[in-house]
Amino acid sequence: MISFELSNILILASTTIGLLWAVYNAYKLNRIKIGTPNQYNNFQDDYQDHHSQLLLEIASHIESGAAAFLAAEYRYIGVVIILLALLIFFIVEPVLGQAWTTVAFLVGALTSIISGFIGMRVATFSNYRCAYCAQTKMTDAFAVAYRAGCVMGFALVSFALLSLTILLGIYINWFIKDYRDFQQLFEAIAGYGLGGSVIALFGRVGGGIYTKAADVGADLVGKVENDFKEDSPNNPATIADNVGDNVGDIAGMGADLFGSFAEATCAALVVCSVSPSFYYHPTTFYYPLLVSAAGIIVCFIVSIFAFVGEKENFDQVSNALKFQLILSTLLMLPALYYVAYLTLPERIFGLAPVDRQPIHAWLCTVVGLISGCIIGFVTEYYTSHSYRPVQEVAQACGTGAATNIIYGIALGNLSTIIPVFLLAFTAFISYSLLSMFGVALSALGMLSTLTIGLAIDAYGPVSDNAGGIAEMVGYPQDVRHRTDQLDAAGNCTAAIGKGFAIGSAALVAFSLYGAFITRASNSLNKHPLTDLGVNSPLVFLGLLIGAMIPYWFSAFTLKSVGRAAFEMVEEVRRQLAERPGIRDGREKPDYDRCIAISTKSSLQEMFAPGLLVILVPLALGLFLGPTAVAGLLPGILVSGVCMATSSANSGGAWDNAKKYIEADLCEIDDIVKGKGTDEHKAAVIGDTVGDPLKDTSGPSLNILIKLSAIFSLVFAGVYDKSAWLLCAMTTSSSGCPA
Amino acid sequence: MISFELSNILILASTTIGLLWAVYNAYKLNRIKIGTPNQYNNFQDDYQDHHSQLLLEIASHIESGAAAFLAAEYRYIGVVIILLALLIFFIVEPVLGQAWTTVAFLVGALTSIISGFIGMRVATFSNYRCAYCAQTKMTDAFAVAYRAGCVMGFALVSFALLSLTILLGIYINWFIKDYRDFQQLFEAIAGYGLGGSVIALFGRVGGGIYTKAADVGADLVGKVENDFKEDSPNNPATIADNVGDNVGDIAGMGADLFGSFAEATCAALVVCSVSPSFYYHPTTFYYPLLVSAAGIIVCFIVSIFAFVGEKENFDQVSNALKFQLILSTLLMLPALYYVAYLTLPERIFGLAPVDRQPIHAWLCTVVGLISGCIIGFVTEYYTSHSYRPVQEVAQACGTGAATNIIYGIALGNLSTIIPVFLLAFTAFISYSLLSMFGVALSALGMLSTLTIGLAIDAYGPVSDNAGGIAEMVGYPQDVRHRTDQLDAAGNCTAAIGKGFAIGSAALVAFSLYGAFITRASNSLNKHPLTDLGVNSPLVFLGLLIGAMIPYWFSAFTLKSVGRAAFEMVEEVRRQLAERPGIRDGREKPDYDRCIAISTKSSLQEMFAPGLLVILVPLALGLFLGPTAVAGLLPGILVSGVCMATSSANSGGAWDNAKKYIEADLCEIDDIVKGKGTDEHKAAVIGDTVGDPLKDTSGPSLNILIKLSAIFSLVFAGVYDKSAWLLCAMTTSSSGCPA
Repeated sequence: MISFELSNILILASTTIGLLWAVYNAYKLNRIKIGTPNQYNNFQDDYQDHHSQLLLEIASHIESGAAAFLAAEYRYIGVVIILLALLIFFIVEPVLGQAWTTVAFLVGALTSIISGFIGMRVATFSNYRCAYCAQTKMTDAFAVAYRAGCVMGFALVSFALLSLTILLGIYINWFIKDYRDFQQLFEAIAGYGLGGSVIALFGRVGGGIYTKAADVGADLVGKVENDFKEDSPNNPATIADNVGDNVGDIAGMGADLFGSFAEATCAALVVCSVSPSFYYHPTTFYYPLLVSAAGIIVCFIVSIFAFVGEKENFDQVSNALKFQLILSTLLMLPALYYVAYLTLPERIFGLAPVDRQPIHAWLCTVVGLISGCIIGFVTEYYTSHSYRPVQEVAQACGTGAATNIIYGIALGNLSTIIPVFLLAFTAFISYSLLSMFGVALSALGMLSTLTIGLAIDAYGPVSDNAGGIAEMVGYPQDVRHRTDQLDAAGNCTAAIGKGFAIGSAALVAFSLYGAFITRASNSLNKHPLTDLGVNSPLVFLGLLIGAMIPYWFSAFTLKSVGRAAFEMVEEVRRQLAERPGIRDGREKPDYDRCIAISTKSSLQEMFAPGLLVILVPLALGLFLGPTAVAGLLPGILVSGVCMATSSANSGGAWDNAKKYIEADLCEIDDIVKGKGTDEHKAAVIGDTVGDPLKDTSGPSLNILIKLSAIFSLVFAGVYDKSAWLLCAMTTSSSGCPA
Repeated sequence: MISFELSNILILASTTIGLLWAVYNAYKLNRIKIGTPNQYNNFQDDYQDHHSQLLLEIASHIESGAAAFLAAEYRYIGVVIILLALLIFFIVEPVLGQAWTTVAFLVGALTSIISGFIGMRVATFSNYRCAYCAQTKMTDAFAVAYRAGCVMGFALVSFALLSLTILLGIYINWFIKDYRDFQQLFEAIAGYGLGGSVIALFGRVGGGIYTKAADVGADLVGKVENDFKEDSPNNPATIADNVGDNVGDIAGMGADLFGSFAEATCAALVVCSVSPSFYYHPTTFYYPLLVSAAGIIVCFIVSIFAFVGEKENFDQVSNALKFQLILSTLLMLPALYYVAYLTLPERIFGLAPVDRQPIHAWLCTVVGLISGCIIGFVTEYYTSHSYRPVQEVAQACGTGAATNIIYGIALGNLSTIIPVFLLAFTAFISYSLLSMFGVALSALGMLSTLTIGLAIDAYGPVSDNAGGIAEMVGYPQDVRHRTDQLDAAGNCTAAIGKGFAIGSAALVAFSLYGAFITRASNSLNKHPLTDLGVNSPLVFLGLLIGAMIPYWFSAFTLKSVGRAAFEMVEEVRRQLAERPGIRDGREKPDYDRCIAISTKSSLQEMFAPGLLVILVPLALGLFLGPTAVAGLLPGILVSGVCMATSSANSGGAWDNAKKYIEADLCEIDDIVKGKGTDEHKAAVIGDTVGDPLKDTSGPSLNILIKLSAIFSLVFAGVYDKSAWLLCAMTTSSSGCPA
């Protein structure tokens, strides 16, 4: 077993490597100069001059739009953060005047904000460089997009791990007077996860509404009413659409996965603090952190391979990305084994009926890692047009949009089966091995390849944006063709990433729930959780209401996208009507007004769903006490996981069914049905329905699941003190305020 | 308190009144003679001759189609019933050779088959009479349709109550040697509920696939490809579509609600058998039966008012139907009060921490009754085009089919909020009053107005069919106009009925779940339910898998409808291609082949979803024992209730948004958007998507929820003996087979 100091040094070393690798990749990106002769562009003529100027202009529109949105968004969220911090300070902190939880909360929130911001900056910095390089070689364009992903992935994970380690180090030195303080310490640390999650919620919801309002709005008024091409520079909403990819898919996804990482670590710390075997070896508390540290090193090694070899067609790119995922999973297996034996005591007791060894901890992480990988590939099977399910959906377009949508809904529903079984058994097996600590470990195991996952996730929107920019700049068709292939390969792996995000959210939420139960069952409580049985009426009430929350939440987000898209449609119609020259490129559309409208409406719309997630557990806890919340959380979890999986995969399938038809791959009665056919129109309707499902409501549900759990964990003490309605109903005054 | 004998006499009296009222209404219907001079038709000419002949011909097509389908369906289901009966006889019966559960199961199944058959006969007997009477007065046509509903409602409920009472009477006389036998007796009686539910499942699924395959198929090939009018006699699938209404909406709905009634009664009996206060007053076991008997009397009185006054426009009809619902609810309040005081002992103990009085039982039934009523009206609010939600969906058609569908999904999700809160608090309050017995009573209270509910539910498809028949016969437009108004009024109240069906299913399932827990926790068991906590891994595993089952199930049913509709489309295309004269009425289409195809494909398709419902709880129970099933059932319940509500209401909203546009009520930018506009086309797509959601997968989910619970109740002993996987995993051999 290693010492405190060595643990710290190892974490520091790995985060340093991660950060340096991120800086190196950023440096490489920065060396690509637009418009001056260099390795990519050794010809200098008028054509290049004109196009480079246009490229820089469009890039600056996108960059300033994204920066303006994030700035406005963080200003709004700042208010929520301050209010929540005050609430935590005055209500949650065990002793008034102490601020351990509050400080952790603020550090978590700040880390998340910085992570989102870094992601957005990197993406807007790379997307036009990717388009630029796509002029010559696909391999170079791939390298740009993947480097951008690496900057984002390594910077985010290393930074998050570093800030959490420093926070933990300070708290351990200042806080701990006695080993018994550990439990309280880790409850305070849970504030870190809460801070990250609150930002992630608003980031995902706000960014998700932004991106889909712009996308749906641009499609509705552009393709349906005016026959603009995708990403046509004559469509005033085009730039807003591209901004959306950066603030929704990149900043939002970054904040989401940062939240998963922070929460999984916090959950592991809180639940392991009940085991006496950890008190005797407090270095073991570094185990969850070292799992992530090992992940950074493994992913660093793996990511180097991405830049080896040619990537001149779809298959090469797609295989390279999948190789990244598989190799990192394989290398993690021994790495996790060594981390477990290095950090954990030989005998772990107090967590299972019998004593456990480090190998059992390793097994938990491995179960999580492998089931995450399988969930990812199942997701790909259901959403890629290389396999039967999506092809069936595309074929269903032959009888119109309605059958397309019915088949897509059915596909989404079917795609929940295997992931749910895997998650159920992962939770069951890891719980059997090491109780809730095991579940937290399985979540950490699933997230141990997070760096590569994030890199691939960011790669997608960057190459998507590059395609849009190439179109707007007016590069020749072969450039667009290259970026399209990059984007298509990214789409497959993005589906894998979404599967990971949902799977890890479920495991994280279950282990946080375990931490909540641990805390709420404390015998010092006024309303101890005596009857947690599923058949007890309060638990059942919570379960039923909980299962409904994802419906409520997704109704809010879907309608928000609808309303925001409608405002965008109105604006585009107004511009086209007032200045008819826009339509054929004689006049320049007012891109910035469209960006402003998307920004304004998405920020307005993000509050209702955001508050819902926070207020429902709070209200139920305040009125009916912790037992009702103990039903609410699993209700949200089980219903939310299914709905998130189904929404994401239905949406992905419709998207790729459309692409399948556009690629002239769809044959119905031996006739190829391509762009412009009725089948294609039906597929476009499906794609538009799927857009808010897969990019707004679906991914936000992940955060709903995790946030409601960690929020309840932090507020468990408050629920316990109130339970007003329950007190009013029962004649006995036990545990009720006088 | 009343005696055994008096209870029997009261039940006998009420069922006799119910049956006589059904016979009287059938007699009145039979007096309407087609084509001969009578009160409706005192002119006799060639026009009438020709049309009457056509009417009778079409009616006989529909009738023979429906009868053929039901006969085929029941033949298939018969095999399942026999297999299940053997399974129950050899595995479930406590002592080999005893057949109490098996006999109850067979009686339940038979009662359900007869109920469905009566419903179908009445409907096919009345629909053409309704069309015939609509030639002259709307009031008369209304009377025909509502009389048909009364025959169905009163015959079904009276017959079901009678068969259950006789079964119970025989069992009590033969079985009971000691008061302790009651518990075992009622577990055997649960077989009655299971029998009814299995038939209901296949009836709902098979009938639901039939009706929507025909409907969607007829629409796709008729309206989209060939520009046929709705119910055009030139469309070969038209008759199959009309047959579908009878086998899906009437026979299926009848079997479904019969199942709810049977299961609620069985659940009440099983859970009350644990209270010692019931042993001392065994007449109290008649309480659940007397609640239903009182319902028949109240509904009889109420239904007489339906035939008073003119019904010459939509408002009069709609108000008359709503008056039926509200009046029966109001009259039930005192009726339930008297039944409680007449039947229950003054002191009810052993069910709650303190002693309870009959008034508490009354309160439970009242909470159920009233929340059922509110759920009904909330459902109407979300699905009727008189209110904002549906109008918003219709407006969303202005930006195309995609926004229509997004808004419809959001509406369905939103519509779950109030019903779920009501159900959660109904369950909580009634549990607080009388534990699981209270929950069963609230379900019985909600179902006490079932007779009127069924009458109104059957009224809808009869008037819908009448409209179709009027169109096919070629009656003048004003006839069709009258039936359309009758149908529209029926649509609103049908939505209310669907709300009832879902709400009662949730409460019934929860009380059955309570009965399952009671049975599985029995201390004699090998695997007693020691840890039912939501945080226990087996319960969580069950919960998560349970929440996914509705997704799996609805994916199956949706794809089945898609496939069956596609076969219908192929057949219609073939007929139109081979005999072009069909298109303009010069040749007669081959209706019977379309009927045969719908029959064949729906019967083929019903097995996979049907078996899923039975096999998943069985497999989980056999491998992981009763604790996993204790998680599975609430998982299915909470997820299924939300999905069923959302599916039914999204579908209803799309349907009525289309009708709103067709009635020229939808204005977008001050322009009326009616039939034939792009908005209408978008609305038709939404309607087609909604069809299988609202009439196949949504209503089948009700049965999924109830059936999985009652199935587990009956098989609880088997799960307990097996738990194979659990035994293989644990080293201890306690409770595991050698």
